[in-house]
This record gives sequence, structure tokens and C-alpha cells, in this order.
Amino acid sequence: EIVAAIDTALGGEGPLSGLTAIVTSGPTHEAIDPVRYIANRSSGRQGHAIAAALAGLGANTLLVTGPVSQPDPAGVRVAKVETAEEMLRACQEGLPADILVCAAAVADWRVAKTAGQKIKKEDGGKLPVLSLTTNPDILATLSKPGRKRPRLVIGFAAETENLEANARSKRERKGCDWILANDVSDTNGIFGGAENEILVIDTAGQESWPRMDKQAVAQRLAQRVAQHFANRKKR
Amino acid sequence: EIVAAIDTALGGEGPLSGLTAIVTSGPTHEAIDPVRYIANRSSGRQGHAIAAALAGLGANTLLVTGPVSQPDPAGVRVAKVETAEEMLRACQEGLPADILVCAAAVADWRVAKTAGQKIKKEDGGKLPVLSLTTNPDILATLSKPGRKRPRLVIGFAAETENLEANARSKRERKGCDWILANDVSDTNGIFGGAENEILVIDTAGQESWPRMDKQAVAQRLAQRVAQHFANRKKR
Repeated sequence: EIVAAIDTALGGEGPLSGLTAIVTSGPTHEAIDPVRYIANRSSGRQGHAIAAALAGLGANTLLVTGPVSQPDPAGVRVAKVETAEEMLRACQEGLPADILVCAAAVADWRVAKTAGQKIKKEDGGKLPVLSLTTNPDILATLSKPGRKRPRLVIGFAAETENLEANARSKRERKGCDWILANDVSDTNGIFGGAENEILVIDTAGQESWPRMDKQAVAQRLAQRVAQHFANRKKR
Repeated sequence: EIVAAIDTALGGEGPLSGLTAIVTSGPTHEAIDPVRYIANRSSGRQGHAIAAALAGLGANTLLVTGPVSQPDPAGVRVAKVETAEEMLRACQEGLPADILVCAAAVADWRVAKTAGQKIKKEDGGKLPVLSLTTNPDILATLSKPGRKRPRLVIGFAAETENLEANARSKRERKGCDWILANDVSDTNGIFGGAENEILVIDTAGQESWPRMDKQAVAQRLAQRVAQHFANRKKR
């Protein structure tokens, strides 16, 4: 890891040298008021590992992360954000990039009007109503065709049912190139855990990876990205 | 700290020896569905430090904590919970106790009906409505007069405005003995930060502590608790 970081710092050669990557990681926190928020479960382990793995293969990498307790990976620039809107802005500021991996668990909704003061709990009073509004869709926004679109856009699909169908439909809806789908049901310990079990869906079809360490998933993904760019060079 | 832990483990003498304490710490997470939740901001730093400080003075201490990235303090039993209901249950199972310190930032509300599967985001579809219901009030429940009521119940009031009035009213509403009030406005960096600035409100009146390290707040509180029990013995 240290060697990889030094390699990168010195512009050492790797299969992704000369390419730039942006990786999102962690959850976003959407404030309800100064003390309460809505969040997604996400440890940031998978996204952080992917940023480290891409940098390890020589990519100039920016990690855009929500609030996590993971340490910053070595050899990577890190932008720390809290909300989905901040995360989108940080990604846009990082463009242009060749590779984008959206591994963050972005909150789909936020509260329409954040309260400036703590909402008081009135004993026996009525409950507050949380009116939600839709957050920007980071993956769909950055997948839109155009001059600034990264050449390879990779999304994640965290599902609790109908993994393949939901992931395949997500890839088409978002307009990204690859989807890495995983089952995050309560029972399998993937959320916040050390391991992951991935189904990769791309234009060519699908590829099922065995359950492995999140570090190993990151290495395998970085290798697949390197292979993709190697194939493009040849053509 | 290590010396204190060894003292406690060996049943060493301290001003709180022979007394039992329960301390709650951290936030609670209330699930919306398998991947989303509502939470309060809380690092658990203050509650964890208080548990360690009480144990350091000889109290047999149980720490009941929501999800935090703080390490378990030495010399303390730790019960890890996620929701307000679980936190209340863990405290009740820890009774009887002489001292109860409620430092957790418990979510006042939870979603009335947690979804068993991830709520799908329908593009262009309607937004989900989050119907909330009131969580059990841990401080008020455990402050109720009765055979099992701890002899000294201490609550926290995290306020963003009208600190003293809100804290005073909270003490009366909840029925606890002391309230430690602090201002958690965005601007002062107390939330998640290393320092705290406390106003103590008890039957006798109020006491303003200067801004200090959260460890120092914990030590000062533990000393005040020890003094309280020393005074009671004398009478």
C-alpha cells in the first residue's frame, strides 16, 4: 500500500497510469434539523477500498466520501461531504475524469425544509410531518451523454430482493456502463461487514463473483477496469 | 485510566465503590427500511467518558450505547443497542442501580411501520410518506418514582436556543434530579467535537461550568456525583 502510494506520488507506472478516477463512498446525511438526520447504512469500506485499488494501479484518484469512520486511504485525494447535493458538487468539480465509480449509498430523499432550530418534542402534542423531496441522482446525472461524461461509469445496486432484475433495470435507467449489484439483506452481514458478494452487469451480460473480502472485490474491480482500458487501446 | 481499570477490576476502593451506575451514550438509529434510518448526531464521546469516569471512582458501571465509533472504555460493562426501544430495555435489565446518567441522543420519533424491503425510488413517482410515532422516553420512564428508581438520575439537554429555560423545563417534565444542559448550535463545534460547555441544573439551582474537554466534564461530573453520595451518608 505504501509502495503503491509512493509509486503514484512519483508518477510510477501502472496499468491505469495517465488515467483519472473519481470514487464516491460512504453514506450521505440529510439534516432534518440541527440534531437529527436521515441516512443510509454504509461503512464506506467498499468505496474506500476501490479508491485505494485504482490508485494502486496508477490512476490519479479523487475519493468523495460522506461521513464514515474509515481512515483516508493512502495515495488518494479525499473530499469530505455530508449531503447528496454536496457529493454531486464535489464530483462535478473533480471532472473531467476517465473513470467514475459511484459506491456511496446516497440518500434518495431529503427533508424538503430543514428546520433551523431543534424541533421540540411536545409531550402529548402532535408528531412532526417529514415532507420529503428527491435528492439529485448522482449516478444518473454524471452518466448523461456529453463532453464531460467519464469514459467508464460504474454504479452499485444495493438490493434486498430481485437482485438481478433490479440491477439490470437500474443500469438502463441510470445510463451507466457497469453495475455491481449486491444483496444487502439483514441476514448476510454484508452491510458494514468485511465481505461482499457481487454480480457485475454490463453491456456484454453478467458475471457472478464469489463472496470475498471487500479489499479483494476492490482489487478485482480495478483489474477489470484496467483490462477494459487495455482492450480499448488495442482497438 | 489503566490504573483505574485495574482498581475497579480488583474491587479497589474509590468514593463510588459499592455503588452501581448505568450510563447511556451515542445516538439511536431508527430504521426506515433495511438500508435507511433516522438518527441523531452524537459521537458518544461525552457518554463514554462519563462511564469511564464513574468506573474510575469505583462505581460498578454498565454503559448502554448506540452505534458509535468510540472504543469501549476500560473497566466498564458495555451493552450495544441500535434503537430507543432496545436502549430502554437494556437499561431496565441493568436495574437496580444507584446512579443513572442518560447522555445518549435518543431519537424522539421512529417510523411507525418499518418497511421489510428497501423502498424503491420510482423515477418521477410519488415520494414516500414517513409516518412517525413517538419513541419511549428513556429518561422520563426511568425517573418515575418507584422501588426501582435509581437514587440519582441525571439527564442531558442538547439545545440550540433558550438553553436555561428549556433545560429547566425539561428537568421538571422528566422528573430527573440533575440536568446537564449544553448548546449544540452548529457554530460552536460541540457536536462531535472534543469540548463541551455545561450548565448544571438541580433542585438547588444552577451551576455554570467553563468550556472544557469532554474528559474533564466527565471527571467533574463523577466528582460531583461522589460528593452527592458523600453528603447523603453524612446526614
